[in-house]
Formats: sequence, structure tokens, C-alpha cells
Amino acid sequence: MNRKQINVGLIGMGIVGTGAAKVLVENADLITAKVGIPVKLTKVADKDIVTKRPVELDPSVFTTDANELLNDPDIDIVIELIGGVHPAKEFVHTALANGKHVVTANKELIAKDGHELMDMADQNKLDFMFEGAVGGGIPIIGPMKTVLAANRIKRVMGIVNGTTNFILTKMAEDGADFDSVLKEAQAMGYAEANPTADVEGYDAKYKIAILASIGFVCRVNVDDVYCEGITKIAADEMRWAKELGYVIKLVAIASASDDGKMAIRVHPVMLHETHPLASVRGVSNAIMVNGDAVGDVMFFGPGAGSMPTGSVVAGDVVDIARNMVKNANGRVGCTCFEHRDVTPMDQVVSSHYLRMRVIDRPNVLAQVAGVLGANDISVRTVVQRQRLDEFAEIVWITHPATEGDFRRAVSELKRVPVVTSVCATMHVEFPAGSKY
Amino acid sequence: MNRKQINVGLIGMGIVGTGAAKVLVENADLITAKVGIPVKLTKVADKDIVTKRPVELDPSVFTTDANELLNDPDIDIVIELIGGVHPAKEFVHTALANGKHVVTANKELIAKDGHELMDMADQNKLDFMFEGAVGGGIPIIGPMKTVLAANRIKRVMGIVNGTTNFILTKMAEDGADFDSVLKEAQAMGYAEANPTADVEGYDAKYKIAILASIGFVCRVNVDDVYCEGITKIAADEMRWAKELGYVIKLVAIASASDDGKMAIRVHPVMLHETHPLASVRGVSNAIMVNGDAVGDVMFFGPGAGSMPTGSVVAGDVVDIARNMVKNANGRVGCTCFEHRDVTPMDQVVSSHYLRMRVIDRPNVLAQVAGVLGANDISVRTVVQRQRLDEFAEIVWITHPATEGDFRRAVSELKRVPVVTSVCATMHVEFPAGSKY
Repeated sequence: MNRKQINVGLIGMGIVGTGAAKVLVENADLITAKVGIPVKLTKVADKDIVTKRPVELDPSVFTTDANELLNDPDIDIVIELIGGVHPAKEFVHTALANGKHVVTANKELIAKDGHELMDMADQNKLDFMFEGAVGGGIPIIGPMKTVLAANRIKRVMGIVNGTTNFILTKMAEDGADFDSVLKEAQAMGYAEANPTADVEGYDAKYKIAILASIGFVCRVNVDDVYCEGITKIAADEMRWAKELGYVIKLVAIASASDDGKMAIRVHPVMLHETHPLASVRGVSNAIMVNGDAVGDVMFFGPGAGSMPTGSVVAGDVVDIARNMVKNANGRVGCTCFEHRDVTPMDQVVSSHYLRMRVIDRPNVLAQVAGVLGANDISVRTVVQRQRLDEFAEIVWITHPATEGDFRRAVSELKRVPVVTSVCATMHVEFPAGSKY
Repeated sequence: MNRKQINVGLIGMGIVGTGAAKVLVENADLITAKVGIPVKLTKVADKDIVTKRPVELDPSVFTTDANELLNDPDIDIVIELIGGVHPAKEFVHTALANGKHVVTANKELIAKDGHELMDMADQNKLDFMFEGAVGGGIPIIGPMKTVLAANRIKRVMGIVNGTTNFILTKMAEDGADFDSVLKEAQAMGYAEANPTADVEGYDAKYKIAILASIGFVCRVNVDDVYCEGITKIAADEMRWAKELGYVIKLVAIASASDDGKMAIRVHPVMLHETHPLASVRGVSNAIMVNGDAVGDVMFFGPGAGSMPTGSVVAGDVVDIARNMVKNANGRVGCTCFEHRDVTPMDQVVSSHYLRMRVIDRPNVLAQVAGVLGANDISVRTVVQRQRLDEFAEIVWITHPATEGDFRRAVSELKRVPVVTSVCATMHVEFPAGSKY
């Protein structure tokens, strides 16, 4: 490459965009040294070019028209950070068509249309990178695509949404209920005004779909990801979890089975307190990857935030710029060359938590246990407790059973006269190889 | 590239070599799919070609002569896994001179001569990779060189030696002393017959020198790394650590200061039990990297072992093979383009643990505290306890002080008549930003 400088255009000067710009500007000397020539942010497109950002940039770089940047022949790398599928997809498409390398942190776009865009980049020998799409500032996509590339990935499990982890941590530690903690999180800027994407698990769904597709080298349809949010978690469950030695987290799990199928799901989990993910507090994220040769490796760090996520977006830019100088672009394209069927949720095997209220009279425990046993659910832990209102509460933690058997047992229990209500159910996870 | 197959030669069929070979053979289909053409282990050199290894390889691939492999024009990638500087360096040199890409997990070689060999690879547009040199199966070198490349790394801190962590974990949990646990570790294959390199901290020294050179983009002379092993840690310290809420670990720390200097050290540390590294047990490793933008990220996993380390060696092979197919080799060469002076150990600032025996009479505590105060050592925690032998034991944990001030205080204390002995000292670390 004969160019004397690499020019970068950024679309979307929001939280992550501002962080990425700051890193590119403030660490320009370090980046120049690593790349060999300067890497300069020469254009920034955003709807709002009036609000002052905490980045030293010449006012002339700002434009409200993304096309100005996409069609600028001097721009080598386009960073897309507007989020959502449209018009982000069209912008990325145009950038690739115009021969520009692309960096994005757009999990929804990658989860839904990543393969198409990666194929397009590949055909044009362009780099298309998205480390910031999962895990905020935590390196995870790069390591899975390179260092762990010789492993058959068996399982990826993580806490990949900082907002919900903040809420659940607060609920557990302060004993507060979901609604009040959500309000607090919104006031602190940890949750958006419309928190649906986070609290219903959609954000985590896109992220685990991306990790599964890389890990299992196959395309993943996001609609095949089972998804359940945290809005229904009651303070009662928090108390029971604590008493029994568990922590409730919103966990994303992708697992590949030996029959070639995969199961991908996002839902609240009671993690045994000795589980490596149980100690992940607040807005931190952590992702465990299990490979056939390496075993378990875990990646931990800030799961969101302007500077952390901005810094890995800038890291992708450095990588691409270095490739440009060495004429080495287009190394790692889409790696989805296998097909995997999806294991239906009712065949997924897991331990379960079950809380119910019963009329307090003789033989009730035996009756309930009988229903569980008849549905192949064996019991690991059971605690019965008298309540002031003369009902009794029984909490069960089962040994692993299929979701189908468990659901069927719960349906039957609801029809047992002495069971006045099934208050809550939740999946339960233990550390790998544990005998708990 | 027009080749129909990429050929790999392996020198050193020991523990890691066998793991790497197994992964390359058993996951050949996955690797072929990722690379685009087959990657085949066509030659293995080892002094011992008689012992049967648990890998399916044609007997004809084995040779006792490394040169046969190094001079084979059909071999594209050489894996060096014999360890030590000589003749490993000569082998790598010949491989690069003959136009072959190189993968190694040889920490001593990289720490001592990495820059020379990387420069040579760079000049020949060859890849030279060494992910397995630090952290066993944990991705750390790749992420630091790529994903975190836009961050100024401020600090790298880790448990990077599995043998010593196994020993210290056993000592803490079983109350056993160093010598007996070492014997047990040797019997279990976790420690070598000659355990010096591990227990004296040399292995960790090479590893932190490598991480520091990548993080701080400068060359590191391994002789500048302060190094202290675990052989002198007494069961008494284990008990005190437990009582006070700490865990003793052999920790490697590299820190860059704002004046452009760096301090690199390996020594036992009392980690406060809330420190993220405190929960790393047995042969596991964990490395925390602090960057100016990303903050703290942590990498955790198996720090050694045939399959874990072998799998990242194979991962490097996949990466190089993929580069070959895309004509993208020689992307990331040596990144040591800065110079940093080394902060002398006596200027390094840390909290300290200090245990002493004193004659039990009035005013002793005040006398000792006075000596500490006169040397600018302020006290965080102090516990005095009467012993059966009529001496008293006093244990101190100090606020941060320079090593020089602390050592001077200890020297003076040894001359105080009521102090019968200074039994032990140790560095102490708290979680980032903690107020403990």
C-alpha cells in the first residue's frame, strides 16, 4: 500500500461512537506506531452535529449525511454505530460496494444479516469486523475466530447484558423489587427509557446467536433462540435463591450436542454460588467458552460503556489498518459452513427450580413428589415451610430433566387440588463437573 | 496460493506437542473447512520416536533429525515445542531462513530472543506466532495484539504458573507445608522432578516479560524482572492470610507509570479475598489486563496441559494457514517500538504484610509502630496475639509504601531489642478501587 494515511469515517456519534472517536484521537500516536502510518478520523456523520462531544475533532469533519462519507473515495474504513437493522444495513452494504472495510458493533445487524454482509466483504477481499457487538470491551469474537479456531466448541455460556445484570445484582443485594430497581437503573443511565430490548432478553438473544454461529460454524436463525426476560422475577425468588446458595442471573447458553444439533436460549438461571458466572456483578459481563481440547476458558470485563466498547471498535480499526499496510485484508470471512438443526426447547435438559403453595395437610409432600416422579423428574433439594397464612410453601430443585417432562409435571401439579398455586419456575445451573 | 494442502512439521513430541498433534489430526475436518484446504502434520521430529503416543500418525512421519524437517521444501509451517533457548533458537532461525512460518510455545525463547526472531519473520513476510507461550489454553497474546491494540495498557497482572498455584492452593486448603505439597504435585505430574523453574518463579518471569513487552510496546530484558519464588512461604503465613481474609498466590505484575517507566515483578502476594484473582484455584491461570479505555478485562482458564496448550498451538497453525490461503501472512510483527526505563524495585509502591515476634512487655506495640511511622509506613491492620511460649506475635498490613521505605523499616525493626525476630514479609494487593 502506497497511501501515507488511512482515513476513517464514523456513522453514529452516540455513546459508543464517541468512545471510539476519543480512542482514535487520544491514542493516535500509539495507533500510528502500531500501524506504521497515521489512522485518522476524517468524517463523522450523525443526525445531531450540534451537541458538543468530549472529543477534539475539527468541526469540518461533521456531516448529517452518511452518504457523504460512504461515497468519499478518500475514506478507507467505515465504522457503523447507529444500531438497528435499517438503515445500518444499507450503509454497510454501500460501504462494502464502494470498496471500504467496515467495523460495526451492531449486534442486531450481525445476528440477522451478518452472513450476507460477511460474504460480500469476502468476495471483495475486504475486512468486516464486529468485536464490539458482543461483550462490550471484552475480547471474545476475535479469540473465538483465531486462538480457539482449532477447537470444536461445545458450549458458550455467558452473562452478556449489563443492564439486566445490574438490575438482578441490585435486586439480590438490596432486596428491592424489579420495578423500583429498573427505575433506579434508568436514572443512572444503565437502562434505557424503553428498556424492552434489555429486560426481555432480545439484546442477549442477538449476542448469543452471534457467538453460537462462530462457535458452531453454522448459521443461526435468531428466531430459533428461545428467549425469556427478567421482568417476572419476584423478590421471593431472590430470597429463596440466597437461602439455598444460588444467584439469579440472565444467562445466554448455546450448546452443541453430539448428534449435531444445537440449542440456544436466553433466560433467567439460578446459578449455584460456586459457578464461575455467579460472582459477576453489576454491569460486568462474562462469557465461558467450552472447547473439546481447551476445556473451559472465561472472558470477563466491562460489558458495555462508551470507552470500553469504543476501544475494541478502535481495535478493529487498528487491525484493518495494519492489514491494509501489509496487503493482508480479507483474512477471516464468514465461517458458517455447517448446518445444524435446532433442538426444540422441550428436549433441552436442565435442572429446575420450582416454588409452589400448598394446603398444609398430611401427605401433601408425597402427593407432589409423586407427580414429579411420574414425569421422570427426580429431586435434588426440597424445602417446605409453613407460612403465616396457614398455607405452606414448598421449593424444589430437581436433577436434570427435559424441559418437556418438567413442563408436563408443572401442568399436572396445577391440577392437584392441594396445590393452590405454582408460584415460579426457573432453570438451575451448576459448575461443570460438580456433584452438587 | 495454488497449493492443494498445507504441510506442518512438528519438532518436540512432548506433552504439548502430543496435544497439538492430536488436535491437528482429530479436528482435521474442522480445520480444513476453516482454512479452505487440508492442513496436514507431515513430519514429527523428536529424540524419542519409539514411545507410542496417543495420536493416529503414520510411523513414516517420525524422524529423530529436526533438520530433515527444517530443510524439507514441502513443509510450510514449523511448530517448535522442545523448550529452552538452545537448540530451539537455531531451529526457529533455520525455519525462518528457509521461508517457513513458525509457531512456538517456548516462553523462554520468546522472552529472551523474541524480538530478533520476530524481526526476521517480519523481513521475510512470514508469520511467527506464540499464543501457547503464556497462559496455556487461555487466549491472551492474540487479544492483546489485536482486540486491545488501541488501548494504552497500564497494567498486566496474573497468575501465570499452574504448578505454583496448585501448590499454594493445596497449602491453603489442606494446611500442608510446601515440601509435602511439592512431593504430592510431583507425584500427580503437576510439578517436574526438578521444580526450580516453577517454584522459583522463572517460568512466570518469562511469561510476564512477554506480556509486558506486548502491552507496553517495548522490549523487556528478562533480567530486569524482579523475581521471588514460593519456597519460603510458611504454613504460618497461610494461617494468617486465611484469618485476615487473604489468599496467598504467586503473582506476576507489570505496571507502566505515567513517567514512562515500567516495573515488572514476580513474587508471592497476599491477595484480598475480594480480588478477582483470589478465587483462581489449582492449575488454573488468570490474567487481568488494564487498558486506559477498556478498564479491566480478565482472561481465565487452564494454564497448562497437553490438550489446552496444544489446542492454541493448533489455533496458531490454523491462523497461519488461513493467512497463506489469503496471501495475508506477516500481518503483525514485533510491536516493540518504544523504550521504557525500569523502575528500580525499591521505588515500587505496594502494601505489605509483616509478621514479627516480640517480647511481651508494655509499650512494645508503640515502639514498633514508631519505627514504621518514622519510615513513612502507615498501618492499615494490626493484630497482636500472645503465644504459648510467652512471646507475642504481631502481624501488620500496611498502607501502600515504597519497597525501599518498607525494607528500611524492616532493617531497623530487626535492631529493636524487643523484636526477637521478623518472621515474614509479603506484598499485599487489593481489588482495583477498593477501600479496604
